[in-house]
Amino acid sequence: MLKGIPQILSPELLKVLCEMGHSDRLVIADGNFPAESMGKDAIVIRMDGHGVPEILDAILKVFPLDTYVDHPVSLMEVMKGDTVETPIWDEYKEIVTKNDSRGDACIGNIERFKFYDESKTAYAIIATSEKALYANIMLQKGVVVE
Amino acid sequence: MLKGIPQILSPELLKVLCEMGHSDRLVIADGNFPAESMGKDAIVIRMDGHGVPEILDAILKVFPLDTYVDHPVSLMEVMKGDTVETPIWDEYKEIVTKNDSRGDACIGNIERFKFYDESKTAYAIIATSEKALYANIMLQKGVVVE
Amino acid sequence: MLKGIPQILSPELLKVLCEMGHSDRLVIADGNFPAESMGKDAIVIRMDGHGVPEILDAILKVFPLDTYVDHPVSLMEVMKGDTVETPIWDEYKEIVTKNDSRGDACIGNIERFKFYDESKTAYAIIATSEKALYANIMLQKGVVVE
Amino acid sequence: MLKGIPQILSPELLKVLCEMGHSDRLVIADGNFPAESMGKDAIVIRMDGHGVPEILDAILKVFPLDTYVDHPVSLMEVMKGDTVETPIWDEYKEIVTKNDSRGDACIGNIERFKFYDESKTAYAIIATSEKALYANIMLQKGVVVE
Amino acid sequence: MLKGIPQILSPELLKVLCEMGHSDRLVIADGNFPAESMGKDAIVIRMDGHGVPEILDAILKVFPLDTYVDHPVSLMEVMKGDTVETPIWDEYKEIVTKNDSRGDACIGNIERFKFYDESKTAYAIIATSEKALYANIMLQKGVVVE
Amino acid sequence: MLKGIPQILSPELLKVLCEMGHSDRLVIADGNFPAESMGKDAIVIRMDGHGVPEILDAILKVFPLDTYVDHPVSLMEVMKGDTVETPIWDEYKEIVTKNDSRGDACIGNIERFKFYDESKTAYAIIATSEKALYANIMLQKGVVVE
Amino acid sequence: MLKGIPQILSPELLKVLCEMGHSDRLVIADGNFPAESMGKDAIVIRMDGHGVPEILDAILKVFPLDTYVDHPVSLMEVMKGDTVETPIWDEYKEIVTKNDSRGDACIGNIERFKFYDESKTAYAIIATSEKALYANIMLQKGVVVE
Amino acid sequence: MLKGIPQILSPELLKVLCEMGHSDRLVIADGNFPAESMGKDAIVIRMDGHGVPEILDAILKVFPLDTYVDHPVSLMEVMKGDTVETPIWDEYKEIVTKNDSRGDACIGNIERFKFYDESKTAYAIIATSEKALYANIMLQKGVVVE
Amino acid sequence: MLKGIPQILSPELLKVLCEMGHSDRLVIADGNFPAESMGKDAIVIRMDGHGVPEILDAILKVFPLDTYVDHPVSLMEVMKGDTVETPIWDEYKEIVTKNDSRGDACIGNIERFKFYDESKTAYAIIATSEKALYANIMLQKGVVVE
Amino acid sequence: MLKGIPQILSPELLKVLCEMGHSDRLVIADGNFPAESMGKDAIVIRMDGHGVPEILDAILKVFPLDTYVDHPVSLMEVMKGDTVETPIWDEYKEIVTKNDSRGDACIGNIERFKFYDESKTAYAIIATSEKALYANIMLQKGVVVE
Repeated sequence: MLKGIPQILSPELLKVLCEMGHSDRLVIADGNFPAESMGKDAIVIRMDGHGVPEILDAILKVFPLDTYVDHPVSLMEVMKGDTVETPIWDEYKEIVTKNDSRGDACIGNIERFKFYDESKTAYAIIATSEKALYANIMLQKGVVVE
Repeated sequence: MLKGIPQILSPELLKVLCEMGHSDRLVIADGNFPAESMGKDAIVIRMDGHGVPEILDAILKVFPLDTYVDHPVSLMEVMKGDTVETPIWDEYKEIVTKNDSRGDACIGNIERFKFYDESKTAYAIIATSEKALYANIMLQKGVVVE
Repeated sequence: MLKGIPQILSPELLKVLCEMGHSDRLVIADGNFPAESMGKDAIVIRMDGHGVPEILDAILKVFPLDTYVDHPVSLMEVMKGDTVETPIWDEYKEIVTKNDSRGDACIGNIERFKFYDESKTAYAIIATSEKALYANIMLQKGVVVE
Repeated sequence: MLKGIPQILSPELLKVLCEMGHSDRLVIADGNFPAESMGKDAIVIRMDGHGVPEILDAILKVFPLDTYVDHPVSLMEVMKGDTVETPIWDEYKEIVTKNDSRGDACIGNIERFKFYDESKTAYAIIATSEKALYANIMLQKGVVVE
Repeated sequence: MLKGIPQILSPELLKVLCEMGHSDRLVIADGNFPAESMGKDAIVIRMDGHGVPEILDAILKVFPLDTYVDHPVSLMEVMKGDTVETPIWDEYKEIVTKNDSRGDACIGNIERFKFYDESKTAYAIIATSEKALYANIMLQKGVVVE
Repeated sequence: MLKGIPQILSPELLKVLCEMGHSDRLVIADGNFPAESMGKDAIVIRMDGHGVPEILDAILKVFPLDTYVDHPVSLMEVMKGDTVETPIWDEYKEIVTKNDSRGDACIGNIERFKFYDESKTAYAIIATSEKALYANIMLQKGVVVE
Repeated sequence: MLKGIPQILSPELLKVLCEMGHSDRLVIADGNFPAESMGKDAIVIRMDGHGVPEILDAILKVFPLDTYVDHPVSLMEVMKGDTVETPIWDEYKEIVTKNDSRGDACIGNIERFKFYDESKTAYAIIATSEKALYANIMLQKGVVVE
Repeated sequence: MLKGIPQILSPELLKVLCEMGHSDRLVIADGNFPAESMGKDAIVIRMDGHGVPEILDAILKVFPLDTYVDHPVSLMEVMKGDTVETPIWDEYKEIVTKNDSRGDACIGNIERFKFYDESKTAYAIIATSEKALYANIMLQKGVVVE
Repeated sequence: MLKGIPQILSPELLKVLCEMGHSDRLVIADGNFPAESMGKDAIVIRMDGHGVPEILDAILKVFPLDTYVDHPVSLMEVMKGDTVETPIWDEYKEIVTKNDSRGDACIGNIERFKFYDESKTAYAIIATSEKALYANIMLQKGVVVE
Repeated sequence: MLKGIPQILSPELLKVLCEMGHSDRLVIADGNFPAESMGKDAIVIRMDGHGVPEILDAILKVFPLDTYVDHPVSLMEVMKGDTVETPIWDEYKEIVTKNDSRGDACIGNIERFKFYDESKTAYAIIATSEKALYANIMLQKGVVVE
């Protein structure tokens, strides 16, 4: 634990977030996401027992979103014909808005299989125990300016 | 995640709990415990962002306490002259009682430096973000009978 | 060993089953299957001395089958012209039926060489000493819901 | 699998049995034995799901017992005052008799804590799921002569 | 060393032979074969100081040849125009005949560069000090039945 | 780089600072300190090209000093008879005062060889290029409270 | 630290510079460059807290620039339409001129995505905390003659 | 050091030369050759401080050149238009002649970029400090006959 | 294989013999010697299928015996009361005599348990399949002079 | 190779010299020194084919000798009764004098077995092919000042 840094960020996660650079991507995956097989070329960090929102909130306190692209935050698009509700997206919008001046305008959607493909080239994948549906989220790192 | 197994138990923690045998000891440590240096000869598992009670509760669902000793659960004794309250112990007692027929009678105290010494020979140490005082707890594994 | 978890599931196997996610595949292979060469990119777990049915039964107690596909369980199709009997399939059907509400309807067949190809991309392969013919079986993991 | 070699002997176990030399010791431990902590300096081989007798029988087919000592086979002595029965010992005697001309005369007892101490310096420890009481057994390798 | 197992089979070789499955291939190479470069994706086992026949004979005692193909044993074809004699083949035929009911009918030839290509995908390559010409031999593992 | 975290703290250093617990010690060593040999049991982090003060300042922004001991900050005592000046200590005092309410009262001295001995059991040693004399400094981590 | 060698060159960096040969390339990257993901096949050296100019200056004291190509030094071209100023390039020119007789004539530009592509095949990438814009620089090693 | 073996051959080099087989290639590279990047798939052996001739001479005492090809020794062709002298080639010819009955007839030339390509698939590359121009040399191993 | 070096010396053994220095000791052990457990701190080289004499003979061709001690060659003393014959010692004497001008005068005896103790600090142990009794032999390396 | 750095210093040796600190010791050993066994806790660097003087000379160009002790350079004392000449010491004196203002006054002697003991705790040992007698030399690193 360190002063002023959210305690949910483990030493290893802190290291990974810090060594990522401009345009590197991070996936915060729900509890059923095949994180180990998708992340064969990535760093996989396990955060069993946690939901996505508390992790997202902590990460955005230290991790800048990319301002060079329109949608540095990506959600997995609801599949055609699927009538599922995605209330967790509202939580995400609130958290993003709290941490980025563009608000939820910087959140985009990616079609499901494209989301998987991009996950395979992400820098890191965080495996949570999140149970909400369509809860996977991808963040693209921005530039740290002072 | 698996059916019927608490989701806070990560794949690695499940493996460690399963490979421990009769009389091996496990420490669930609070957020300021020097888990890495105490655990140089142990397996250290990080569970940043979690408190001790939720982990203890999940572990006792699959992990039998030793019935061959009087106190398979050990707390760190309050130091002489210290007037601190330890409300978290009541939570621990409730959790243990729920999972072991002996109830809180199987919980004992260990003097602080003895606790540290025993931690150094534990099989595994779980590093949490628990903030309560005197929250470290040590469990001795019992026999699985059917 | 842990309370309430089948003892045939080794610590390592438990870890692997737990870290698999939705749509990851697992092969339980017979005693002559070339598990090491097929599994160069997979995790290979040896369970010498065991047959497939007892392992299958234990795994399905904790491992949900995929409900998003019709046949989350795959057997290797009997080759054309081969008149061999496959009595072990009846055992498999009984075990699957005991553990999945769809019963044996969720069991499909895969042509032999396709089975090999899919094995090469499985998450894990369990090498048994099963002697029955056409005894290889592949499981696709489903979603854990509570 | 190989011709004429019991199939319960895994590739790794076969390698370990073969590389052991005269006077090296092997422990076949029951399901609650703390194999990993006792075996920190040994090779630990997991055989979850198996009992001790079937393993003992297979091992003695290829592994000679030491003829230079009186008791190359050691059981853990029943503790004073303990009235437990040890029917598994009869199975052990039968298996040993079948494989060594000295019969059960080559089986001795070791006091419990001495047994633990010797386990720590064994060459290898096999972790089984054996549930019988006092089922741990230690074998000392003899000389292969033709 | 183990009872009843040829002593020329090292612990590691025994492990490799045992973990091979149906259709995996093994090359026993002569002393000048580039075993390390051909075997970059294989397991290379050094048996310096030995000839091929004594190794072949020991291996076939425990290793079944594939009965699903006509020629589970392959020799490297004499190159066109090469008038060299290959007396070591007669030794091979005798050894194979002693260990497989099909006799030398199960021995085939592979053109030189095809032999090299197949070596690159073999499961293991044994590097010997054999000096005879055209002495490389490839074995395809069969099924162990009881 | 991360928002709000001093950029001189590398990903690895951040991880190490975060995983340290209450009472673990950290040495920031000058350019001639034998960091690798003193730190055989420690984590050694190289920060070539930097002086000690800028690192100390950055670390104290996130790293709490131990409040359970009088001198969580230790300097290496000037040897008897040595008339050297230690102007860098004034910089250290200013930096510590800026970051800890006890001010420079929490800085103590340790005799030179005792300093070396304690360095050998430190959790981590940072190797700098600091050229000032008597510039080694040791920090003992405190408790993070919120 | 060594006599006559700039102290900002860490032991590991010195080793890397020394083992590079004619035509190998080195990237000194700014603080937001995705050094770890670009450098998956390269050696990544962290120099957090440093700017590029002081590192460039130290490296050129021991590292010859390639004289067989026109532009052994490459900057990342300002993107079309971007009106940013690049004052740090003047510093680079001064440093290069001080160390190479060709002066700033040996500095060329590479289009941004081509720069990224070449970075992926560089021998090493140095990750700095440089904040200036368009500050990435690539060096191609020349021949050491005496 | 060993009796009768040139002392410039290090233990590791001796091992590498010995494990090479018929047709494997070895590059002895000059001091500016990018040995590490060319040799990513090869074994790189550093012999800093040595020139090529003394190494070539020692190697040829134990290493047979391939007699199945015309030019088992390859030099890097002088580039068109380059008027450089290559006096070191005379040394090479003398050394080869001393060790191979074919004399310098077994030395061929390879165009520069082809030389680089072949280096990438060599079994090993020796990095020297040789300063002569066009001093790289490649050897193809032959058959050891007695 | 290399020219002029006995082919029974594997690449790894050659490396080990070469890197040994004055006074380092090597054990050539018989087939029942517990080479792996005795050699926990040594390099263990397996030469299954070989007897000791052919290895001893090959080694002494390149390995000088220590001339600074009386008995650089040590045999394991026959135990008191043991009436066994040791004909293999005559072979050893002949081989040593052939390779060292002192003849068999440089061969001494070491009491059995002292031999074991010295084996534990040997530089390397060679595990053979030698079946003769009292066949273990220890060599102390001498100085290479030219 | 680097500009202005002796080419006999390999990348690895340069790294080791650079990471050594004040009072760390380095042994440059002759060709028969048991460098690997003496250096089990040290870094061993092989420089086969080189004598000690050329290495000593190159090292002292970058490596300061300790000025806090009288004899930062140590030779192995000639044993009592030994009448050997040590002409190589004169070379060492000349080299040291050339590089240190104290001249050969900073060279001391250490009794043979004490030399061995100190070697075991050295930071690094360089294994050369030096053939001169009593040629081992130990250097203690000093402070780099500018």
